[in-house]
Amino acid sequence: MIKVGDTHVLCTASLEERVPPFLRNSGKGWVTAEYGMLPRSTGSRMRREASAGKQGGRTVEIQRLIGRSLRAGIDLVGLGERQITVDCDVIQADGGTRCAAITGGWVALRLAVNKLLKAGDVTTDPLLDPVAAVSCGIYAGQPVLDLDYPEDSEAGVDGNFVLCGPKLIEVQMSAEGSTFTRDQMNELMDLADKGVSELVAAQLKATA
Amino acid sequence: MIKVGDTHVLCTASLEERVPPFLRNSGKGWVTAEYGMLPRSTGSRMRREASAGKQGGRTVEIQRLIGRSLRAGIDLVGLGERQITVDCDVIQADGGTRCAAITGGWVALRLAVNKLLKAGDVTTDPLLDPVAAVSCGIYAGQPVLDLDYPEDSEAGVDGNFVLCGPKLIEVQMSAEGSTFTRDQMNELMDLADKGVSELVAAQLKATA
Amino acid sequence: MIKVGDTHVLCTASLEERVPPFLRNSGKGWVTAEYGMLPRSTGSRMRREASAGKQGGRTVEIQRLIGRSLRAGIDLVGLGERQITVDCDVIQADGGTRCAAITGGWVALRLAVNKLLKAGDVTTDPLLDPVAAVSCGIYAGQPVLDLDYPEDSEAGVDGNFVLCGPKLIEVQMSAEGSTFTRDQMNELMDLADKGVSELVAAQLKATA
Amino acid sequence: MIKVGDTHVLCTASLEERVPPFLRNSGKGWVTAEYGMLPRSTGSRMRREASAGKQGGRTVEIQRLIGRSLRAGIDLVGLGERQITVDCDVIQADGGTRCAAITGGWVALRLAVNKLLKAGDVTTDPLLDPVAAVSCGIYAGQPVLDLDYPEDSEAGVDGNFVLCGPKLIEVQMSAEGSTFTRDQMNELMDLADKGVSELVAAQLKATA
Amino acid sequence: MIKVGDTHVLCTASLEERVPPFLRNSGKGWVTAEYGMLPRSTGSRMRREASAGKQGGRTVEIQRLIGRSLRAGIDLVGLGERQITVDCDVIQADGGTRCAAITGGWVALRLAVNKLLKAGDVTTDPLLDPVAAVSCGIYAGQPVLDLDYPEDSEAGVDGNFVLCGPKLIEVQMSAEGSTFTRDQMNELMDLADKGVSELVAAQLKATA
Amino acid sequence: MIKVGDTHVLCTASLEERVPPFLRNSGKGWVTAEYGMLPRSTGSRMRREASAGKQGGRTVEIQRLIGRSLRAGIDLVGLGERQITVDCDVIQADGGTRCAAITGGWVALRLAVNKLLKAGDVTTDPLLDPVAAVSCGIYAGQPVLDLDYPEDSEAGVDGNFVLCGPKLIEVQMSAEGSTFTRDQMNELMDLADKGVSELVAAQLKATA
Repeated sequence: MIKVGDTHVLCTASLEERVPPFLRNSGKGWVTAEYGMLPRSTGSRMRREASAGKQGGRTVEIQRLIGRSLRAGIDLVGLGERQITVDCDVIQADGGTRCAAITGGWVALRLAVNKLLKAGDVTTDPLLDPVAAVSCGIYAGQPVLDLDYPEDSEAGVDGNFVLCGPKLIEVQMSAEGSTFTRDQMNELMDLADKGVSELVAAQLKATA
Repeated sequence: MIKVGDTHVLCTASLEERVPPFLRNSGKGWVTAEYGMLPRSTGSRMRREASAGKQGGRTVEIQRLIGRSLRAGIDLVGLGERQITVDCDVIQADGGTRCAAITGGWVALRLAVNKLLKAGDVTTDPLLDPVAAVSCGIYAGQPVLDLDYPEDSEAGVDGNFVLCGPKLIEVQMSAEGSTFTRDQMNELMDLADKGVSELVAAQLKATA
Repeated sequence: MIKVGDTHVLCTASLEERVPPFLRNSGKGWVTAEYGMLPRSTGSRMRREASAGKQGGRTVEIQRLIGRSLRAGIDLVGLGERQITVDCDVIQADGGTRCAAITGGWVALRLAVNKLLKAGDVTTDPLLDPVAAVSCGIYAGQPVLDLDYPEDSEAGVDGNFVLCGPKLIEVQMSAEGSTFTRDQMNELMDLADKGVSELVAAQLKATA
Repeated sequence: MIKVGDTHVLCTASLEERVPPFLRNSGKGWVTAEYGMLPRSTGSRMRREASAGKQGGRTVEIQRLIGRSLRAGIDLVGLGERQITVDCDVIQADGGTRCAAITGGWVALRLAVNKLLKAGDVTTDPLLDPVAAVSCGIYAGQPVLDLDYPEDSEAGVDGNFVLCGPKLIEVQMSAEGSTFTRDQMNELMDLADKGVSELVAAQLKATA
Repeated sequence: MIKVGDTHVLCTASLEERVPPFLRNSGKGWVTAEYGMLPRSTGSRMRREASAGKQGGRTVEIQRLIGRSLRAGIDLVGLGERQITVDCDVIQADGGTRCAAITGGWVALRLAVNKLLKAGDVTTDPLLDPVAAVSCGIYAGQPVLDLDYPEDSEAGVDGNFVLCGPKLIEVQMSAEGSTFTRDQMNELMDLADKGVSELVAAQLKATA
Repeated sequence: MIKVGDTHVLCTASLEERVPPFLRNSGKGWVTAEYGMLPRSTGSRMRREASAGKQGGRTVEIQRLIGRSLRAGIDLVGLGERQITVDCDVIQADGGTRCAAITGGWVALRLAVNKLLKAGDVTTDPLLDPVAAVSCGIYAGQPVLDLDYPEDSEAGVDGNFVLCGPKLIEVQMSAEGSTFTRDQMNELMDLADKGVSELVAAQLKATA
C-alpha cells in the first residue's frame, strides 16, 4: 500500500511460471501491470468498469504505462522465463494515481524478486535502479510538483516523469487546451528530479 | 472496512438524488449494491473482471443478494425518492465474503442514513433492525460457523443466513455433491442466530 | 416437456464424451444446465437475451441452481468421464419456472442415463433418488404451494426447495421488502415435502 | 406452431403501440422479426447464442429476411403507427427453417391483425396476399422441393423463394462450391410456385 | 483498388499457410472475406464498427456473400491446404459496394494465386472463370443496371447477380415494400449478363 | 490523404451541429478523433478491430492523443457549439502513423473550418498555428527523425512531439527495455523542431 498525500494505491505482485506466447522458449521473462480504481476512490462515485463491461481508454493507457515503466528497470533475461503481474488498485484518489502506482508497483516487484532470490530461483538480481515516477504540471503559471486533484483538473499542462536512477524511462507532457515552452519543460524536469529522489529513499526503506 | 477473521471488505455507501426508472414519481427510494474482489484478494491471483469484459455469474448473484438483504431492512418510502449504492470490495478473502459484505454494507448504509437524518433530508429513521449475515456449513460431519476458505471448499453443505433482528431475510442452504437433513438445517440455524448477535453488537458499536 | 400448471418447460439432455478442463483425467463426469425463456413465454414480450448480447443475472443464477441440484443427485464417478448438458427452455411461463426446470431436467437426465445403461457405457446406475423442486411462499399471510405468477410477484416471501428423496439439496428463502420467522419457514418446508412427493410420482411414471 | 416435415417452428406476434425512431410521426407502422433456435433443435447440440454473447451471422441474416418478407405483404400505412414483432423459435429443425418461419410468421401476423380489426383499432385490412416461402435446391443433379437437412447440406445449389400470391418478394439462389444455369433456375421457380400454393391453402385454413 | 462509378473499394488478398479447424488435414484450402466501410465513405458519417464494438448485420451478410462467391470460382483442392483472406474496404461509396467488392476481390485473389503459381507452391491454376457481380434494380418502373445510391434507396426491387463466366453463382432479388414478377426478373438477368461481360474484360486487363 | 514516406493516412473531418453532453449550453465546441488501420496496411495482415469486437488499447491511446492535440490548436469558444470529428484511417503503414494522423488531421480540420468561415457560421478563425507532429527515436545510438517501421521496432527509445508553431502541445518519450538521458532528449527535440517546420510548410501549401 503506497500513500502519496491523499492518494492510496494497493500494489501487489503475482508470479506465474509461464510467459505470454510471444516469449515462449526465449529465455526471457515478462512484467505486466493491471490498474483499477474502486468506484468510491474518488469524491463522487465512478461507474465500476466490470459492470460497464470493459476497461475505459484511460485505464488501458495507464496500465500499459505502468508495465512499460517497470520493464525498463529490470533485466528480463535475468528474471528467467516467468511472468510477474503487478496489480495496482486505487483505494483513494487525489491526483497522481498513475505515478503512485508505478512507484508502489516497483516496491511490490522488488519484494517479489527478493523472494525469488532467496529461494534461489533467480541467482543474480535482475532489478536495476529503483523505478519511481512523479507527476507535475503548470498550475496558475507556476511549475508544481505532485498536483492534487483540484490542481490537476485545472492545470493547463500536466506531466509525468518516470525515472530509473539518474536515467529517464518515460516523459509525458501534455497540454489540454493550452501549450507550453521548452523552458517550462526544463523547469518541470528539475522539479521531477528532486521529487523522485525522495520517493526512491522511501522505496529503499520499504524494501530494506 | 469490515474484518471478519482474515476476510477484509471495504464497504462504502454513495447517495444519489434520483432513483431507477421503475420508481420515478413513486415516492419510494432504492438501495442497490455492487460487489467486487481485487485480483489478489485470494491466495492465487484471479482474473480482473473489468479486463475479462464482464462480471461473472458469482459476482452478479452476490450483488443481487446484498442489495435484496439491505432493502429488506429499510423502509423505502421513509428513505424518500433517492438511491443509495453500497459498494463492497473485497481486499482480502478467506471465506464468507458475501456475509461480511452484507454486515459491513449495513454499517455503511447506517452511516449514510445518519447523514441524511442530521441534514434533515429524512426526518424519521427508515432503518429497521440491523441486517447482518453469517455463513455456516457442515464440515467433516459437524456444523461449523464462519467457515474459512479451506473448510468452505471442502464442506459438502454450505449455508448463508441473513437476519434482521429476530426475523429472517434470506436463508440459502446448498449441498454441493451431497445432501442434508432438516435436523442438520435446524442446528445450523441455531448457530447462525448466535453468530449474528455478536455481529450486531459490533455493528452498533461501529455506528454509535 | 414438463407442464406444471400453466408453466411449460422443454427439457433435453445432451451427452458429450468429454468433460470440462478441471475434470480431465479425474475419472469423474459432470452435469451442467442451461436455461432460457422464449421472448413470448410471458404475458408481455421480454427482450431476447441473444439479441441483448448477454444472459441476465437471473438467467445465470437459475442455470447454476439447476446444474448444482442435478449434480447432487448423481454419483459423478459412476457416470464416468462424460458430460451431460441439460437444456431447459421455457415455452410458457406462469411462476415457478426454475422448479419446473429442475423437475423436468431430472426426467431428461434419467432418460439419458437409461440410454447409457442400455448401451453398456455405464454399468451401475449413478442416479440416486429423483431430484424435484417446488416453489412456495407466503401470500396474503398464508403459506402457499406453487405460486402462480400474480401470487409470486406480490408474495413478500418466496422459497424454493430442492429435494432428493427425503434429503434436502437446496433451500432458498428470500424476503423482498419483508421478513419471516422460523415458524413460517417450517410450515413452508412441510408444504414442500408434500408437493415434492406428487412430483416424484409423476417423474417415475414418465421414466418408467 | 408450424410443422413442415420434421421442422417445427413456434411463431408468435407481439404488438406494441410505438414504432422505431425513424418512423415516429410518419403515420406508418412496422413489422420486424426475431429468430432463434433452441440448442437441441438440431441433431447435435448447438451452442446457445445468449451464452455465446451474440447472435451469429446466420441468425441475423435470417431475421432480416423474415422481417423484409412480411413487410412486403402488408400496407404499413394501413397498419397505423404501431409495431408488430414476430418471434420465430425453432423447436426442432430438419432443413428449411427460414422458410417455415416466414410461412408460420405470416399466420401469427394474420391473427394479430385480425385482433386489431376486431377491436376496431385498424379499419381496413392492411394485409395483402398471404406471404409464404419454400426452399428448394439441386440435389444429385435433380431439382428438389423442401430439402431436408441431409439433402440440404449436400446440395450444391440451394434456393429460397418468398411469394406473395402470384408475385415474388425475394429470390435467393446460392451455389456453395458449385454453379448453376438459368434453365435450372427456371425449373426451381416452377417447383416453388407449386409448393407455395399448398402452403397458402394451409395458411388460409389455419386463419379462417 | 476497384472503382465502379463513384464507388471505390480497396481489395487485398492475404495468404496464410493454415486453414480453419474444420479443414485441417483435408487437403483443401479456403477463401474467406472481410468487408468494412470507412466512416466517411458515405455522404454523412457512419459510426465506426470497431468503436461500436461489433460488426452490424449488413456487414456480416456482405462478407459472407463475398466469401461464398469467391469460393464458388476456385478449386479448393487445387489451392492446397492454405487460406486466402480477401479484405474489401470501401473508401468511397455510391451504391453497389458489395458487387464492386466481389469483382475487385477476384482481382486480388487472381494476383495472389498468380504468385503461388509463380513460386511453384501451386502447380495447376485452381481459378475457374472470373467471378464478377453487378447490382441492378427496378427504378421508376424501369430495369436499371448499377443503381447509384439515390436510385438504390428508392428502388422497390433490388438485385445482385454473381456470375462465373456463363454460369450463375448467386442470385438475390429482394423487394422492399413492393413485389415483382418473373418477367421483370428475367429482364434484370439479361441486363446483368451484359454488365458482367464488361467487368470481366476489365478484370482480365487488370490481371494480364 | 497525407503521405509521409511510405505511411499513407486518409484524414477527413465531419461536422455535427451538436456537442457531447458535458458541453451542452456551454457555448464551446469540441474536436474529437477516431483512428483505424486497414487490416492489410501493415506487412502482415492484422486482425480487423470491428471483427475482434473492440478497439485495442493502442488504438484508443492514439485517438485520444490526436483529439487532444487538435483541440490544443483551436479556440473552442470561437468554434461555437458544434463538434468536428476527425477520422484518420491508415491505408498503408511504415512507422509514425500517429504523427502522420495528427499532421493530416489538422489539414482536414483546417479545410472544415474554412468552410464554416466561408458560410459565415463562424466569423473569426478559431484555429491557432498549425498543429503538426513528428516521431523520432534513438536508433543504433543515434537520434533519428521519422523512424520507419524496421527502425521503430528496434529503437530502444521512441518519441513523439506535437507542436503548434513554436510551442509544444505534447511530448512523449518512452524507453522500451532501455533508458535515456536528458541530453539525448534535448537532441531529439532539436531534430523534432526541424522536422515540424517542413511539415508545416506542406500543411500550409495543402490548405492555401
